[in-house]
Amino acid sequence: MDIKRLNLEELNELCHKLRDKILQTVSKNGGHLSSNIGAVEIIVAMHYIFDVKKDPFIFDVSHQSYAHKLLTGRWDQFDTLRKFGGVSGYTKPSESKFDYFIAGHSSTSISLAVGAAKAIKLKNEDRIPVAIIGDGSLSGGMAYEALNELGDRKYPCVIVLNDNEMSISKPIGALSKYLSQMMAGQFYQKFKGRVEKFLEYMPDGAAYMARRMEEGIRLITPGMFFEELGLEYIGPVNGHDLSSLLSTFETAKAMRKPVIVHVQTLKGKGYEYAEGYLAGWHGVGPFDLKSGEFIKKQSNKSATAIFSEHLLKMAGEHSDIVGVTAAMPTGTGLDALIEKFPERFWDVAIAEQHAVTSMSAMAKEGFKPFVAIYSTFMQRAYDQLIHDACIQKLNITFAMDRAGIVGEDGETHQGAFDISFLNAIPNVVMFAPRCETSMKKAMEFAYRYKGVSAFRYPRGAFGLNDEFEAKDFRLGKGEILIKGSADTAIICYGNAVAKGLSVRNLLKDSLDVSLVDLVFVKPLDKEMLLELSKSCKKWYIISDSAKKGGVGEILSAFLQDNRIYDVSIASFEYNDAFIPHGNTAEVENYLGISAEQIAQKLLLDN
Amino acid sequence: MDIKRLNLEELNELCHKLRDKILQTVSKNGGHLSSNIGAVEIIVAMHYIFDVKKDPFIFDVSHQSYAHKLLTGRWDQFDTLRKFGGVSGYTKPSESKFDYFIAGHSSTSISLAVGAAKAIKLKNEDRIPVAIIGDGSLSGGMAYEALNELGDRKYPCVIVLNDNEMSISKPIGALSKYLSQMMAGQFYQKFKGRVEKFLEYMPDGAAYMARRMEEGIRLITPGMFFEELGLEYIGPVNGHDLSSLLSTFETAKAMRKPVIVHVQTLKGKGYEYAEGYLAGWHGVGPFDLKSGEFIKKQSNKSATAIFSEHLLKMAGEHSDIVGVTAAMPTGTGLDALIEKFPERFWDVAIAEQHAVTSMSAMAKEGFKPFVAIYSTFMQRAYDQLIHDACIQKLNITFAMDRAGIVGEDGETHQGAFDISFLNAIPNVVMFAPRCETSMKKAMEFAYRYKGVSAFRYPRGAFGLNDEFEAKDFRLGKGEILIKGSADTAIICYGNAVAKGLSVRNLLKDSLDVSLVDLVFVKPLDKEMLLELSKSCKKWYIISDSAKKGGVGEILSAFLQDNRIYDVSIASFEYNDAFIPHGNTAEVENYLGISAEQIAQKLLLDN
Repeated sequence: MDIKRLNLEELNELCHKLRDKILQTVSKNGGHLSSNIGAVEIIVAMHYIFDVKKDPFIFDVSHQSYAHKLLTGRWDQFDTLRKFGGVSGYTKPSESKFDYFIAGHSSTSISLAVGAAKAIKLKNEDRIPVAIIGDGSLSGGMAYEALNELGDRKYPCVIVLNDNEMSISKPIGALSKYLSQMMAGQFYQKFKGRVEKFLEYMPDGAAYMARRMEEGIRLITPGMFFEELGLEYIGPVNGHDLSSLLSTFETAKAMRKPVIVHVQTLKGKGYEYAEGYLAGWHGVGPFDLKSGEFIKKQSNKSATAIFSEHLLKMAGEHSDIVGVTAAMPTGTGLDALIEKFPERFWDVAIAEQHAVTSMSAMAKEGFKPFVAIYSTFMQRAYDQLIHDACIQKLNITFAMDRAGIVGEDGETHQGAFDISFLNAIPNVVMFAPRCETSMKKAMEFAYRYKGVSAFRYPRGAFGLNDEFEAKDFRLGKGEILIKGSADTAIICYGNAVAKGLSVRNLLKDSLDVSLVDLVFVKPLDKEMLLELSKSCKKWYIISDSAKKGGVGEILSAFLQDNRIYDVSIASFEYNDAFIPHGNTAEVENYLGISAEQIAQKLLLDN
Repeated sequence: MDIKRLNLEELNELCHKLRDKILQTVSKNGGHLSSNIGAVEIIVAMHYIFDVKKDPFIFDVSHQSYAHKLLTGRWDQFDTLRKFGGVSGYTKPSESKFDYFIAGHSSTSISLAVGAAKAIKLKNEDRIPVAIIGDGSLSGGMAYEALNELGDRKYPCVIVLNDNEMSISKPIGALSKYLSQMMAGQFYQKFKGRVEKFLEYMPDGAAYMARRMEEGIRLITPGMFFEELGLEYIGPVNGHDLSSLLSTFETAKAMRKPVIVHVQTLKGKGYEYAEGYLAGWHGVGPFDLKSGEFIKKQSNKSATAIFSEHLLKMAGEHSDIVGVTAAMPTGTGLDALIEKFPERFWDVAIAEQHAVTSMSAMAKEGFKPFVAIYSTFMQRAYDQLIHDACIQKLNITFAMDRAGIVGEDGETHQGAFDISFLNAIPNVVMFAPRCETSMKKAMEFAYRYKGVSAFRYPRGAFGLNDEFEAKDFRLGKGEILIKGSADTAIICYGNAVAKGLSVRNLLKDSLDVSLVDLVFVKPLDKEMLLELSKSCKKWYIISDSAKKGGVGEILSAFLQDNRIYDVSIASFEYNDAFIPHGNTAEVENYLGISAEQIAQKLLLDN
């Protein structure tokens, strides 16, 4: 199918088909729903006006890329969406040459467009980058860094600002307000008010003048924010009206300048249950297409839910607890806190750097901030953690959700590296709970501890229930959960204790291994480990983290530091490669680190 | 002295004294000159209007804080500026309770002001945060993230935008242009042009109207960029006119809203040689106050100079080489490249995230980007390195300057962590040159290697000259430089080979140790290390890097992975603490890692 040969009616028909296919697939596989069905017309118009074979199509976060995938040869495989080995939920060059760049983290698209435009200019090629970015992604500082260069150096490119007046949940921030004021005409109103000041001085005929002036201002004002940054601005355009989109994109393309095309869309457009500002329809699990009811899997309470509930309780008891999320209120469970204590908990939009540093100032002022953040997004505030929190040993805690394999989101979202990159930094203590009760105790310890602390917990539910009594956390204290008779120990960290127990149970008939929960990875429980090293000479490490710089390597260094040369270490953390998407159990199996696989390796080894 | 009791004449006199003291001290000790003497009146006015005993004084990067230090009890110690154990070149709470926050990295001040304002509101205190930020720091995306929240939630605070139309070197970026257009009146001109469109439709009396209208526009336009973000704006104000500053700050303070006070200053004001847009006077070494001549220490060519010269040569030979710096053109030596090849090398302002991601797109387009960046600033683009460069194994290289102890800049600038945080990331190779010739060969290898690579080199000159012939770099190949007869090896990485050689020479009469250059820390030279482990059972590690996650721990893990249990490792990398400022040799001595100290420890150990 050559999209460029279709007429308007056929293009609209195509949009219907795409929307239907996305709904059918996401209702079965889960995925990003409302942003994807909201952007169908934009994607179709992009493919009609630009040439995906040569123009870089750059998707910010790529929450809007499903229609693009369907239009570029992935229709038939689309039912494998987000499944192991199947179509990724994000753009991915290794999946298709029409995916220009990987994107799972926000606010990168304008930087990429600038880089592509520089390259195109140098190569003197007839191509133009076209980026699509949601209004939510525009709050990330990196987007401004790129706009700042683009407005100065003026490389031709088209930036489609897909404005659905929300990012993942509610619109946050001044720019977001600015955009919606433009929409609501408040911007014009404010301006008109100012202009009316002049009219007082006017001679007769002022009514005619005023009308003329208003028209003039309408021409010059709506995109002033962008124009002042040196960018051309067109908009707002109705993002569900293909005809407007086509003519606007055509104009923007022909300008050969950096142009912001401001497009207004409705999130969830075309699916009655999802239309509007509903955070619940952003990223979804399987649901019944007809009723809009989610198909709930029976499962234990998620770590996120435990965090949310318990922090609510703690915040009620301790008025110095404050907290922040960077645009993940539902994802981190901070939504309940923001609702109950709007003066103490904030969503600061996609702005991890600002989140960490502003909370560092609150720590300085005597409050105890809980920064609720996904492990993978902690990477985006690494310098702020070092420079603003750790150097001054501030009293702040990082609650790192989604540590370990996150499942269907894949490469860009795995929480693999936090242990490695945090361990190198002075003045931070690191620990991890293993079950619901110990999660609560970890949070209470974080509150009591006066310094920088970081604890990690998994996506979904803990693997353990109350197999082991959860004790109060004490700084640097680990726990030998089971003392076996063999000279072999399974040493676990955090949620991996559950897997360690499974391995132990699988081995029970042949090998009576000890089971250890480190609890703290920084500082380590030196006393416990020295004691352990006397009876157990083979240490097997299980932790949901990268091997390089991970728990196994930390323990190898511990042995060297303590001149212990008769203990061997083998780690079942992640090898040095990015980890693909898919059901977590399937992915672990692929990596060779399921409980069964580990048990088998231990048997061979002993 | 109570500054609040001084009259205008006495305040001006105080400014003279401060400027003189700063000039006297910096001419002897080196330091940040032009930004500090340019901001004297602003600081005095801040101290007059606000109350440093309660209002948070927040300095962005704190390149402007010397006058503040002198006004808060550090006059007598000021001759120890930047010396080991002396006054820090940056704000530092552990040095004085009047230093609200540490700041050596840019663009954090508005986030801190937001955090402080949230705390003040919660505590219901009568205090107001006052931040001072240079126009250069405003290019960092984090500043926008904070403005975006501030404009929405409107916490009272005063943000002094110290606009000297340059950051460290030339002004870069659209916002910078916007600010200077405001100054030059071009902004009004552009507006006036637009307004004149309307005037065509006007009846007679248009001249009168036009004048009125222009006045009206003058009232509403200058700070529109900030006003659209929901912030109040006052300015521009002459930043060397104390009287204007005092009345403006008074007004801003009384508004109880977030206010941008736009102040225009001249960098280097009051010292004839430094006045104006001279990058050379930003951070300086000792100089002759009378002649303005720098007192050059005789020293070998710096690693930065080698990088600059050789990249210039390589870029002439290979048209696919491109490169970027984030506001450090002279610091990284990229200035020469930008001058010679303005179409291929860029300064993108203080915008490390954008620098890395835009160059990732250039790599995708077939170019070979060299990202010239300080080790400490690599922390600010950590997620971009992972998410945009490494996942896709792009062909890009990170040239990391200022690796190891940087000397007088201290805690915030030490290049201690790059090995640890990079090693955890898949798809990156890491190496380090040891001398001028090997630096060139490292750069040539980086060009040949098709993937993500990162190499590190020191501030200043390499310690080695041509004691060892520099060979071509081969992926993952290290070098046994000297094979000794003892069972002891000193294993070094990068510039630390020089120290390793010194240690060996100090020991020569008592212990004939082997000297090894790892060259690559990822991947390691397995073959060489296995061979080494047969003859040398004691490994001593010397590298300019943090111990945690550093070279010693990487080698401990290597031994475990290869089931080698009869080799001991002791590392002379940095212990797990932030490293204070001072002359590098003094700091190393304080850390116990000078060549002499290491030699002594080896003797005790053997």
